[in-house]
Amino acid sequence: MADEKIDIAIIGGGVSGVYSAWRLKQANPGKKIVVFEASDHIGGRLLSVVPPGIPDMVAELGGMRILPKVQPLITNLLKTLNQLLPDTQQITTYLFPVDEPQNIAYLRGVYLRLSDFTAKPDEVPYRLGFPNHGQSAGSVVINAIEQLVPGITNPDLTEDQRRDMAQQASFAGKPLYQQGFWNVLMRVFNGESYQYALDAGGYDSTMSNWNAADAIPWYLSDFGVAPVYKGFTKGFQEVPLTLARLFADAGGEVRLNSSVSALRSLDGAVEFHVDGRSVAAGSVILAMPRRALDLLADSSPILQEISGLIASVTPRPLFKLFTTYTNPWWRAAGYTKPDGSVVAVEAGRSVTDIPVRQTYYWPKSDGTPAKTGPAMLLASYDDGDNTGFWDGLRPQRHQHKPKGQYVAKVNEPFIAEHRKPNLELTWDQYQAPYRMVTEVARQLSTMHGLSYTPKVQEACFRDWGDDPFGGGWNSWNIGVKSWEVKHKIVQPLGQQPLYICGEAYSDAQGWVEGALQTADLMLAKFGLNALKG
Amino acid sequence: MADEKIDIAIIGGGVSGVYSAWRLKQANPGKKIVVFEASDHIGGRLLSVVPPGIPDMVAELGGMRILPKVQPLITNLLKTLNQLLPDTQQITTYLFPVDEPQNIAYLRGVYLRLSDFTAKPDEVPYRLGFPNHGQSAGSVVINAIEQLVPGITNPDLTEDQRRDMAQQASFAGKPLYQQGFWNVLMRVFNGESYQYALDAGGYDSTMSNWNAADAIPWYLSDFGVAPVYKGFTKGFQEVPLTLARLFADAGGEVRLNSSVSALRSLDGAVEFHVDGRSVAAGSVILAMPRRALDLLADSSPILQEISGLIASVTPRPLFKLFTTYTNPWWRAAGYTKPDGSVVAVEAGRSVTDIPVRQTYYWPKSDGTPAKTGPAMLLASYDDGDNTGFWDGLRPQRHQHKPKGQYVAKVNEPFIAEHRKPNLELTWDQYQAPYRMVTEVARQLSTMHGLSYTPKVQEACFRDWGDDPFGGGWNSWNIGVKSWEVKHKIVQPLGQQPLYICGEAYSDAQGWVEGALQTADLMLAKFGLNALKG
Repeated sequence: MADEKIDIAIIGGGVSGVYSAWRLKQANPGKKIVVFEASDHIGGRLLSVVPPGIPDMVAELGGMRILPKVQPLITNLLKTLNQLLPDTQQITTYLFPVDEPQNIAYLRGVYLRLSDFTAKPDEVPYRLGFPNHGQSAGSVVINAIEQLVPGITNPDLTEDQRRDMAQQASFAGKPLYQQGFWNVLMRVFNGESYQYALDAGGYDSTMSNWNAADAIPWYLSDFGVAPVYKGFTKGFQEVPLTLARLFADAGGEVRLNSSVSALRSLDGAVEFHVDGRSVAAGSVILAMPRRALDLLADSSPILQEISGLIASVTPRPLFKLFTTYTNPWWRAAGYTKPDGSVVAVEAGRSVTDIPVRQTYYWPKSDGTPAKTGPAMLLASYDDGDNTGFWDGLRPQRHQHKPKGQYVAKVNEPFIAEHRKPNLELTWDQYQAPYRMVTEVARQLSTMHGLSYTPKVQEACFRDWGDDPFGGGWNSWNIGVKSWEVKHKIVQPLGQQPLYICGEAYSDAQGWVEGALQTADLMLAKFGLNALKG
Repeated sequence: MADEKIDIAIIGGGVSGVYSAWRLKQANPGKKIVVFEASDHIGGRLLSVVPPGIPDMVAELGGMRILPKVQPLITNLLKTLNQLLPDTQQITTYLFPVDEPQNIAYLRGVYLRLSDFTAKPDEVPYRLGFPNHGQSAGSVVINAIEQLVPGITNPDLTEDQRRDMAQQASFAGKPLYQQGFWNVLMRVFNGESYQYALDAGGYDSTMSNWNAADAIPWYLSDFGVAPVYKGFTKGFQEVPLTLARLFADAGGEVRLNSSVSALRSLDGAVEFHVDGRSVAAGSVILAMPRRALDLLADSSPILQEISGLIASVTPRPLFKLFTTYTNPWWRAAGYTKPDGSVVAVEAGRSVTDIPVRQTYYWPKSDGTPAKTGPAMLLASYDDGDNTGFWDGLRPQRHQHKPKGQYVAKVNEPFIAEHRKPNLELTWDQYQAPYRMVTEVARQLSTMHGLSYTPKVQEACFRDWGDDPFGGGWNSWNIGVKSWEVKHKIVQPLGQQPLYICGEAYSDAQGWVEGALQTADLMLAKFGLNALKG
């Protein structure tokens, strides 16, 4: 006999978990619905932290933006939430800048501004050849995609139409879903175009060897057709926090620091262990990514039955390091026009092929750049192969976490000089390794061509490759029919009341949109429709 | 009670296993000594295969060469063996060419000959700057190493002296062994020098983030001071095969297809399971790399006690693909001198930064190049990051092996057109994936600048990343004191009669020299001295 009986248990307090909990509680006010979250907070890979001394900025250690034009689910959710929330609690966004023309691309030892990619093609140090010479990195990839799936870049197509085309497409006599994105790109690119797209694009893993039929619509959606990003005034974590609060207000229960194990099927219910007690639930929803499912499977034979489904995606390492300064020194990497006016580097990002890869000049909460006074950088946003470089600067990277501790302890942390660390401060719970901060500072100075850069004041770091996440995002494996798996996995064991949702098994991997998509697919099994805009 | 009792059990029939078996049997003719090998053959990562139709060549799917000047153990072993062997069975070597001046470096879309690195520095497409401009890739790394550990490149030093220096050295205030090779190289290189050394060097993993105190003497030994390599007339596998034969002739026993599990300590002996029977051995020697130890540890709690020692190295993926042709078409990638004489590409290797990376024009068994008639390439010798590209062309790369089958089944293998596959032929047991062969052929044509290249006749493939090897070689992890671990691990459990040896925990990782070094350290526990030359 179980120690406790509940109607619906949701394991995982990330956005897909609390969204599902809230929707289910709204539809079933009389049912006992509980969210179990292993860590001490709600949000999963949405983690928004205010830097000490800079109250008008929010560091996004996890997800940081949305693409409203192509992401109807999060857009509708925000609209719905704002209708429910009082004026003082409205969730607001700002225009999140990315590629400003004066920003820097330091590639192969050459300093360029982003505008030079098209304005000064002869200075771009890649032998791109015809027809890629003079094109931006994004255009080069889109040209390649158009060669792989003719017609797919037509801007009149919907996201669904593009996905259908990619799923149906063959290239060189083989269905696209059986091929790797890197493999097929190399058939229509020369090696230089691939390297340019990778280096100037800023990401290592997006063009790696994942399922080409998924990668192509994903790439077109994210980087493709003049993307317009929005950031969150109070941080993206406000969305899951709000959902959790609404859920609790409706009588739902959220239990933090509650790590679940030993899931098993029993008399039409699902039983599991938490805090040394057993819980029997009428339905269990696992709102978590692949690595967390793998870890849970160690103690749960029921999940080992669906190991094939679970293993249909690969977690991709990714980390973020924020640093703060007494002033926005990067402005000096701008230039002076002939008329004497100054064009500062101040917003969006710069890229380089040295391991630091991408740096974002972090905006204030109203979306405007810091022009004077304290300022912050997303100093490195790094994924894929280069994470190996930074691992070397994290002593004992792979050590086990002390029991009950959520984030791996950092040996040799970076300590701010002017104040004592204070674990009440969320910022201080995510310490950065000292040697990593030092090396990032050195590379930032190199990529900006500035001999002097002021001292780092504060640093904050999150590596989403750490357990239980295993990666910042997940990518579909080659050979998998994602359009079948995504439907199967939401209720993977026939009629048994076990459900899975989250970004990992969606069409918008790495995005909150993907988390909401699979949550909606799963909620349909409970008779719920997607939110209307 | 065990089903069988033996005096010394050696698990693993690679070179360290059969060498140890032979030495122990010589010293203890009355003892019952048995080698257990999980596969159907002796040799481990030495695997020499004759290509169909080319009887005067031997494809080395595994280790392929030695460095006699800096590898006394293998040199002495060959001398000793040849003294014992009749004239007809002498083990002979040939000069193994590597970097011929006319060979190709196809880097960043530019065709160079290797001689251009120093003769035409302005054509080398890397912004190396002073003092690396005009230097070969090897020289650039050696210059960097000299900055990291001043004096260490002095050619008068012995290998041991270099290792001592690196172990004692600090760089930027931190002991070198606590730092990653990639991390410290980036402090004395600019990013371009690192990329040049990596691309033109041909290997991805040698300059990755492994223990800098080990990487530096290792690099100097292998690539450093004008290395002279020797290959084996009948293939390197002849060495372990000879050792196994001598061991058997002396009354030792070799059991193939004998997979061992469930190792445990019992009354001063060590017991294990093999073929459904239990064996008790007075001593057990595990002659295997880290991944094989990890796999054995799953059923052997005794090994879990030393998981820290076992985990002090990392297996590095590496594969080899051989292809044969009706003629050595690559000769045409040479040039004609003003006097009309032709300088052909015919020996050694060419390099490129596209995924195929390194191609060796395979020599005949007398060391001379094929000038007409059937010819063979080590078409791709690839490690590190690029293996991800090729994985995409191996459908179901990670599938489990059918029970009792040693090599993972290749879906869609490359099949020679003119003959039926014949599993009696060793060559046909190591099928290459069809799509990989096709893509390698395409990239070979690109890197040689030849529009026409003839059809591949035969292909043979081995990925040493597959279990139970986990990698082609192993590298010491950052923070490990290898000079302590290498002594501890040969008898890791105090006085218990359990021993470990092999390349993985040596000073010459990836080399037979390393396998012999740790075998000698281990044999010293049995009172045996190293062989004298």
